[in-house]
Amino acid sequence: MKLNQGRKLTSMPGPSVIPDRVLNAMHRAMPNIYTGELVDVSQSLFDDLPAIARTDGKVFVAISNGHGAWEMALTNTLSRGEQVLVLESGRFAVGWGEQARKLGCEVEILHAAPRSAVDPQALHERLAADKDHAIKAVLVVQIDTASGVWNDIAALREAMDAARHPALLMVDCIASLGCVEYLMDAWRIDVTVGGSQKGLMVPPGLGIVWASDKAIEAHKVANLRTSYWDWTARMDESYHYLRYAGTAPIQHIYGMREALDMIREEGLEAIWARHAIFAEAVRAAVDIWAAPDGLEFNIIDPAQRSNSTTTILTNRIDASRLHELCETGAGLTLGVGLGELSDSTFRIGHMGHMNPPSVLGTLGTVEAALGAMNAATGGSGVAAAAKVIAEELSS
Amino acid sequence: MKLNQGRKLTSMPGPSVIPDRVLNAMHRAMPNIYTGELVDVSQSLFDDLPAIARTDGKVFVAISNGHGAWEMALTNTLSRGEQVLVLESGRFAVGWGEQARKLGCEVEILHAAPRSAVDPQALHERLAADKDHAIKAVLVVQIDTASGVWNDIAALREAMDAARHPALLMVDCIASLGCVEYLMDAWRIDVTVGGSQKGLMVPPGLGIVWASDKAIEAHKVANLRTSYWDWTARMDESYHYLRYAGTAPIQHIYGMREALDMIREEGLEAIWARHAIFAEAVRAAVDIWAAPDGLEFNIIDPAQRSNSTTTILTNRIDASRLHELCETGAGLTLGVGLGELSDSTFRIGHMGHMNPPSVLGTLGTVEAALGAMNAATGGSGVAAAAKVIAEELSS
Amino acid sequence: MKLNQGRKLTSMPGPSVIPDRVLNAMHRAMPNIYTGELVDVSQSLFDDLPAIARTDGKVFVAISNGHGAWEMALTNTLSRGEQVLVLESGRFAVGWGEQARKLGCEVEILHAAPRSAVDPQALHERLAADKDHAIKAVLVVQIDTASGVWNDIAALREAMDAARHPALLMVDCIASLGCVEYLMDAWRIDVTVGGSQKGLMVPPGLGIVWASDKAIEAHKVANLRTSYWDWTARMDESYHYLRYAGTAPIQHIYGMREALDMIREEGLEAIWARHAIFAEAVRAAVDIWAAPDGLEFNIIDPAQRSNSTTTILTNRIDASRLHELCETGAGLTLGVGLGELSDSTFRIGHMGHMNPPSVLGTLGTVEAALGAMNAATGGSGVAAAAKVIAEELSS
Amino acid sequence: MKLNQGRKLTSMPGPSVIPDRVLNAMHRAMPNIYTGELVDVSQSLFDDLPAIARTDGKVFVAISNGHGAWEMALTNTLSRGEQVLVLESGRFAVGWGEQARKLGCEVEILHAAPRSAVDPQALHERLAADKDHAIKAVLVVQIDTASGVWNDIAALREAMDAARHPALLMVDCIASLGCVEYLMDAWRIDVTVGGSQKGLMVPPGLGIVWASDKAIEAHKVANLRTSYWDWTARMDESYHYLRYAGTAPIQHIYGMREALDMIREEGLEAIWARHAIFAEAVRAAVDIWAAPDGLEFNIIDPAQRSNSTTTILTNRIDASRLHELCETGAGLTLGVGLGELSDSTFRIGHMGHMNPPSVLGTLGTVEAALGAMNAATGGSGVAAAAKVIAEELSS
Repeated sequence: MKLNQGRKLTSMPGPSVIPDRVLNAMHRAMPNIYTGELVDVSQSLFDDLPAIARTDGKVFVAISNGHGAWEMALTNTLSRGEQVLVLESGRFAVGWGEQARKLGCEVEILHAAPRSAVDPQALHERLAADKDHAIKAVLVVQIDTASGVWNDIAALREAMDAARHPALLMVDCIASLGCVEYLMDAWRIDVTVGGSQKGLMVPPGLGIVWASDKAIEAHKVANLRTSYWDWTARMDESYHYLRYAGTAPIQHIYGMREALDMIREEGLEAIWARHAIFAEAVRAAVDIWAAPDGLEFNIIDPAQRSNSTTTILTNRIDASRLHELCETGAGLTLGVGLGELSDSTFRIGHMGHMNPPSVLGTLGTVEAALGAMNAATGGSGVAAAAKVIAEELSS
Repeated sequence: MKLNQGRKLTSMPGPSVIPDRVLNAMHRAMPNIYTGELVDVSQSLFDDLPAIARTDGKVFVAISNGHGAWEMALTNTLSRGEQVLVLESGRFAVGWGEQARKLGCEVEILHAAPRSAVDPQALHERLAADKDHAIKAVLVVQIDTASGVWNDIAALREAMDAARHPALLMVDCIASLGCVEYLMDAWRIDVTVGGSQKGLMVPPGLGIVWASDKAIEAHKVANLRTSYWDWTARMDESYHYLRYAGTAPIQHIYGMREALDMIREEGLEAIWARHAIFAEAVRAAVDIWAAPDGLEFNIIDPAQRSNSTTTILTNRIDASRLHELCETGAGLTLGVGLGELSDSTFRIGHMGHMNPPSVLGTLGTVEAALGAMNAATGGSGVAAAAKVIAEELSS
Repeated sequence: MKLNQGRKLTSMPGPSVIPDRVLNAMHRAMPNIYTGELVDVSQSLFDDLPAIARTDGKVFVAISNGHGAWEMALTNTLSRGEQVLVLESGRFAVGWGEQARKLGCEVEILHAAPRSAVDPQALHERLAADKDHAIKAVLVVQIDTASGVWNDIAALREAMDAARHPALLMVDCIASLGCVEYLMDAWRIDVTVGGSQKGLMVPPGLGIVWASDKAIEAHKVANLRTSYWDWTARMDESYHYLRYAGTAPIQHIYGMREALDMIREEGLEAIWARHAIFAEAVRAAVDIWAAPDGLEFNIIDPAQRSNSTTTILTNRIDASRLHELCETGAGLTLGVGLGELSDSTFRIGHMGHMNPPSVLGTLGTVEAALGAMNAATGGSGVAAAAKVIAEELSS
Repeated sequence: MKLNQGRKLTSMPGPSVIPDRVLNAMHRAMPNIYTGELVDVSQSLFDDLPAIARTDGKVFVAISNGHGAWEMALTNTLSRGEQVLVLESGRFAVGWGEQARKLGCEVEILHAAPRSAVDPQALHERLAADKDHAIKAVLVVQIDTASGVWNDIAALREAMDAARHPALLMVDCIASLGCVEYLMDAWRIDVTVGGSQKGLMVPPGLGIVWASDKAIEAHKVANLRTSYWDWTARMDESYHYLRYAGTAPIQHIYGMREALDMIREEGLEAIWARHAIFAEAVRAAVDIWAAPDGLEFNIIDPAQRSNSTTTILTNRIDASRLHELCETGAGLTLGVGLGELSDSTFRIGHMGHMNPPSVLGTLGTVEAALGAMNAATGGSGVAAAAKVIAEELSS
């Protein structure tokens, strides 16, 4: 029987749930685009976005998705023929590296152990071996939404420092900003890449790039620059539309404003703490569900499991049937497995606009679907998750 | 710590969750109110609403809440000094009776056993004793949202028949229409009272009354009639606005149209079945949570517990703390206890636009709140509820 | 050819244009109905609404349209058999009187001259003749949306004073509140009746009644009272829902809050002045269009023409063709004639959320439609209206 | 006095008025992004967009504004060092050419006469002189929103044919698609560039490029290609997200679907005809307002004035005061002058979701503002415009 008649719940690892406040802010007539409120609101984004990445550096906003933000990051800092080191730990850093290769860079991939985070020691060794500093940039993700891994960016920074290597450190935080701690300046990151549609709770359509002074210096000599992404024009404050290389993304500007207000109201540290708790609740459920021939965390080391996305291997359990039962049967959309994981995986996004009813609703529904399949589990995961929430509520 | 940052979930026994489709349909500019689309859409409500109550009779729509619908029902069918029998089984039939008394009727209350449904046998006896048929109307609710009771309307009808009593049978279905089986014509109900804001999934603002031919006959001599509620003017089809005794409720007309479309798409029988499953899931959870000095169903007889609302006594557990933890801590609004139950009760609405994520999210959050209070429970209620859902998903 | 593809413009004399801000405020999920924000917002309406009528008296809000507000006003202040004097100047006071008659009052109509306002002198004479003060209430409208007349309420008050008559003065301001000056306390009005859907810029669904201390005194002995409308219960502050005699009108509460914010931001005096200018612009256009066998103001005396609605007789010009050309041809909805005026009239509403583009867009489109019919006019009305606006803009 | 309290009217030449239907379609929760409705709706855009440009060729949709669409067009068809001929007739083709130069192309500008369209004869001569076909692409706009010019694309095509020149003909239709006739295949255009935010009535955020087979051939050897814009990946139908080079623009997909439905309902030819009439109305007004030392069309030749935008020189009249009076005084936003025209120009957008009330409301308000400034005009422009509409309504 189909029970999926209520409000659909999407617990994908992005695009995440969009708050009603954000949708309402986007439901508006075209404003004057030349002066007045729109220009002020737009400027306020540029004032407030640096703090989201904990930086005093510059921020650039492109009308694009995350892949556009990648391209903005690369084309503004690199030149044809330059060498780039990609730190693999899932799919996304590799995809970013493919972009760099297509743009004309030399791309090398540093592989991680299977189902694991990037090893800082391996990075240290590779950079130490690059005596003449041929490597110009190191690309890495903080959280990989495919694998569910969390990379310890601070440790990677230390590894680069230990190797006294001057390469730019460029971090994809699309799946982590607004979810987990990220300290761009403290960790001396040069380029941070983000998108609107995950922890920032705005529909897809804005690519965001933060740049350190060092990145801005690199920009001055980069020859991959093109008009649409170019930072120099975007820093020209004489005309506001130059911020967006043309017509501004009206609806998204208002949506982002509302989302930043929500983030400020809750507080970024509180948001990180909330994500940690929900992730712990999800992991508590999966721990219970894990059973021989049953579910299994994709990321082997608990310390490397991310607080925004959990990727779960289904092994002998039919993943597509699980998705179908949740979606068509119960109105819950989970994330599918990406790439090689696509047939035997599901992913739970616990990012952004979530709360106990949505987290426990997700887990309860997964548990019901597993039950409907007579899947082997070790008990009630949702009960375990509720205990995690209970402990937090009592504190 | 506060975790209530995501989309709030309201699991009150009404107003219930309003579907986005309905809210979107209501987000519209003023139309031509004289001819065209609005008039057609409005008429379509009058065409489609009778089937919601399974009747071929007339339907009247008032701009009001449920209390207005009550007043419409009474003033159109009764006269000053007439006798009315109220079948008590919670708060609402009694409240309706108070209205009748204030209008000038003689009101008698037939009390039910504590925490129980109306006893058909008691009704039969009372009517049998009314030899000269002084009682003109019998008032009863199908589901009382305060007590959570479900009354067996078909059995009450039989009791009246057995007593060969001609009183009008008037049923308040505000908390039951669109949730549980209701067959107005088959059960020979004379007046059915409904509202927009529960099973019908539209914001509060429409009172709806269905009338049998016998009720229309009674109307012709009723002297309580007033202009605002009067059926005769509302049956005058020469001017459409007469349907609403003046300016039409534009936004609610479009909202109700969308809701009726959703009901048609799912099918009323499927909706009843879905509510039965969710109610069973909720009861499975409460059954587990019930423990000495702990939670307890308000309605003693399981067969009398309604499929749209569950009222739970908290006994020694601090109900206000439970509400606070759910609401402020976790973003879940439960129903409070009404009247004498207000200090030691919570109510779960499982009506309308619900699905497994919202039902299990509600139960999981209640379980977390109970856990945070170290309340005595017999185990995991949400796990038990997930099993109920699992069984259904597998079928 | 049909040109009606853009955003439809409704220039009916209510329901008027709903601001996007108000619609957005109404596009929201169900809140906690027991405590918190909703209760606070609702209370704020009761705090702020008295100032809209310039009174320190009580205000009552019913889920209803204006006809419901009429019924609330009558049933709370009168008893069966009491005598009511209706001051006719169009359709609406008479309609209100019909309600009173149906409720059991004795209703007498004081007729105005054709196409004219109520004559204060005639009122004085009638009341002076009522030596024993049999007349308990005088009913009048400030603006009649059918005829377009404006009654001088202050002068009517003086006429009553001059006759030393103690009857309640009850004024229907549905089509005038938020449009033209109205000073309830200064003019010693006893009951003011309003609705949400005209000058207050909220969709139809709220009836509003303001009451003086004298009216509250009358209420105590009125025997027409019924539960739904009863003021006594609505003044009981122990439970907030009693304000609405049951479930609160959630969406409309938030919509009204937004509208009251808009009114406060602009200022009531500024709003009255703005309405005066737009009305003058409309009348300037009609003055130009007026021609032998052509258009004509319904209200003969310019001083009696209202600032919220203009009713125009079309004489030999085919009114239904004019409506059709505006509506189907150009996307403009005008008000139709009501009652006996229905065949040869159109009405322009210039109330609420209007500005020069909408006023001049309305007039320009009417002019185009008149032109398409080769109607006899004396030149360009919209040009004359633009001059009125120009003069104001230059000041 | 400020009269700008009603619904603001934006008559800028884009972003244009967004229909409520489109905004409502965008007000929605995140859907399943992997399968189901979103994927189907997205695919339907690719099915329906070719007809908007009257082509059977391919269409590509980028998350970007028009400048991004420009970059997609250039990078997919050209290589570093290749020669591009830009046909100047305002600002935008030149801006596009600057992009090409920055990408590494050799760019030559063919200047038009001041305030005029591109001369087909001049194009013919230039191409005829390019014996060895060094010029690989010709860039031109159909309508320049800065100057208000309309270029005769069919005539330019003929000029190229007459010169037997094989360069790609690339046309920027951002300000003309959905407004004026455009026949991509019949005119053998190779690349058409569009955006969502003008005639297509969707908020800014989608760049759209249509490509002929010849353009696709050129693409295969173009070395300016980058991942974000690359057509090859976007033609890979194995994964739907490749259409958008990553996360899909959910809200805009639903918005565009609604807009395309509206276009289909009206019919593209009817839309073109409607725009012609509104443009004629605007020009009739400006013709009247034109006076010595007063207003003046920017485009000298009436045959070259566009049907979507009218650019008006204010000469001695203070343009900034005019904008201020319209905007702050009356709630009407006009387009400002761009570039060298910025101090003494205003522009009226008459594109997309317009109708007689909005066109005449715009003109009436401009007339009022001109009147407030005592500007020299030759009479009532809005009256003249109303006559144009009248003539059309009568047909």
